[in-house]
Amino acid sequence: MKRILICPNAFKHALSSIEVSHAIMLGLQESSFACDLVELPIADGGDGSLEIIDSYLHLVLHEKEVVGPLGKNVRSRFGMDGRLAVIELADASGIKYVSEQERNVWKASSYGTGQLIHEAIERGADKIYLTVGGSASVDGGLGILKALGVRFLDRNSNHLENVTVADIHQIVTIDLSRLVFQISEVKFTVLCDVENPLLGPEGAARVFAPQKGAKADDVVKLDGIMSYWADLLEKQFGKRIHELKGAGAAGGVAGMMSAIFNAELTSGAEQILEWASFEENLQNCDIVITGEGKIDEQTGYGKGPGLVAQKAKAVNKKVIGLCGAVDHQGAVLQYFDAVFSVTNGAETLRDALSKTEINLRHTAFQLGQILSFD
Amino acid sequence: MKRILICPNAFKHALSSIEVSHAIMLGLQESSFACDLVELPIADGGDGSLEIIDSYLHLVLHEKEVVGPLGKNVRSRFGMDGRLAVIELADASGIKYVSEQERNVWKASSYGTGQLIHEAIERGADKIYLTVGGSASVDGGLGILKALGVRFLDRNSNHLENVTVADIHQIVTIDLSRLVFQISEVKFTVLCDVENPLLGPEGAARVFAPQKGAKADDVVKLDGIMSYWADLLEKQFGKRIHELKGAGAAGGVAGMMSAIFNAELTSGAEQILEWASFEENLQNCDIVITGEGKIDEQTGYGKGPGLVAQKAKAVNKKVIGLCGAVDHQGAVLQYFDAVFSVTNGAETLRDALSKTEINLRHTAFQLGQILSFD
Repeated sequence: MKRILICPNAFKHALSSIEVSHAIMLGLQESSFACDLVELPIADGGDGSLEIIDSYLHLVLHEKEVVGPLGKNVRSRFGMDGRLAVIELADASGIKYVSEQERNVWKASSYGTGQLIHEAIERGADKIYLTVGGSASVDGGLGILKALGVRFLDRNSNHLENVTVADIHQIVTIDLSRLVFQISEVKFTVLCDVENPLLGPEGAARVFAPQKGAKADDVVKLDGIMSYWADLLEKQFGKRIHELKGAGAAGGVAGMMSAIFNAELTSGAEQILEWASFEENLQNCDIVITGEGKIDEQTGYGKGPGLVAQKAKAVNKKVIGLCGAVDHQGAVLQYFDAVFSVTNGAETLRDALSKTEINLRHTAFQLGQILSFD
Repeated sequence: MKRILICPNAFKHALSSIEVSHAIMLGLQESSFACDLVELPIADGGDGSLEIIDSYLHLVLHEKEVVGPLGKNVRSRFGMDGRLAVIELADASGIKYVSEQERNVWKASSYGTGQLIHEAIERGADKIYLTVGGSASVDGGLGILKALGVRFLDRNSNHLENVTVADIHQIVTIDLSRLVFQISEVKFTVLCDVENPLLGPEGAARVFAPQKGAKADDVVKLDGIMSYWADLLEKQFGKRIHELKGAGAAGGVAGMMSAIFNAELTSGAEQILEWASFEENLQNCDIVITGEGKIDEQTGYGKGPGLVAQKAKAVNKKVIGLCGAVDHQGAVLQYFDAVFSVTNGAETLRDALSKTEINLRHTAFQLGQILSFD
């Protein structure tokens, strides 16, 4: 009997990866294909990662009301297992809290994420994993620092009150004297969903600020501010993050965490696959089914399904991708044996999103039918 | 090596069945699936049937300018092979010539089809196949009769000049004295794409007149007129078509052809499958791929792909359907092992139609990839 590993990402704006995995499983079970099914939903550090990580690590979840990305309180969660904590930036400072009209890179802050880190440390965490996908801000982690007690001095050594990203160029000294003191004991790992650097054409401002509400001239200003910020961090902490891979994740949060807290930046997809015991499951399966809302060029850059497909191909497993839409030109397709869009006929994006579950289930059923041919 | 029979209908408003078949073939050839491919595009008597029939019978095609459904001349074609002729009603009197705004059941006529029949008879035809799908009119075949020289008398035995469908209830006698005389030698077969009767809830007026431009009160009037027409035909020619299966095809053309010319009404899909040597090809294949624009309830009622699937299932072949959209509730699905919509992501109907060829080719490729799994 064939063993199928069901290993999808979330379908953004439609279903969590747990829901996607379940719909695929049901479709295959309804088909004539007699097979063993192993569900292994994944994430790459974006929105919803905590739920997936929790499903593998069985964390104790804590709720905390924090300051959301635009200043309004939000109810957020983080997970702990002994002294290990997992914090999802998107659940405190995520763009999911901000409507399209409200998006504003000058107001958006990572402050709430700092509050979660603070809380986790107070609860005894000494190993913190921070997922950084799905953020609303490009503040270089300024908000996090403020929430942790850091103060900022100008050229006259005056405290800058209520400093925002727009004021970063006035900061001359970062004052860590009031920083929550146990933090020096904490080992940070940042789980990045992208590999972009902080600055330049592939940087946090140019690539991600537009989807966070920045206009063209905002982008140029922000890139300059991030450049000043990187220089300042290097000057004061001796760590150069200008070219660091992944430093641009979450609007520079990843770079700041590396410079000040010596955080390790790593691939969220890689870490979550490890927690999911992906390699062992991969060895024992015949076919891998992965997928996400859109399979395209981006899927090849550190996204979960791209990594899953690449790893599966490396050990000669068959790989099938299911998605809302596929860009057949994407180089990532070399790692897939077949990719199917699950849409059924002409559908508006709104309809396609709302029908994702039933469409996925139908497509998985058809797939099972074909796989049952002898 | 597996042998695949590619046996699709046209995708309405997008591709002819020959184009559909070719796109599927290319997709499979580009895949890793080593297989023998047999292309057997089909039709069921609708728009484009002549092209498909010609591909199997190798007819001599004749062009003729005839009066189109609304009176404007159109260039039409019919095919001959010796004394056999194949006439596609849709190419002379088809709704393809009428824009949505122009549709008008009181003006639309089958006259041009009568001209083609006349021409075929003059060229020596004594066996005429008439495909009747895709018509613009609900005239009970009145137009055909006029083009063949038939005249119509009222209760005072006066000729009714320029009689239209709205005047049918004034006709008391159908005068065949000036009918093109060789017609008595001709054996007619009407290739129906539907099984609807002429009258009542499943009849030509109620079911098809609305898509030909009829409003609710037009439908009621037309159904009454067709009822009068059937009574008149029975009274004068002794043949009752009130309950005849298929008599409602092409707005009653099929019923009239049966009553006056003793035409045999048969399934277009069945006849075309016979011309295509479908049964022999079916015996020698492993998998049948069929499809049409929409696979739904209608596919089960005499449509080509429904018949293909049913025949293939009857001899335990695997059947795959490709389509623009599928209604997963359709009872016809029992004859398919798997059905895939070829759309890729959220697409407007316009986009989906214009991308049908590339979407089909991509889907056939993915299918080939899966079929190549061992």
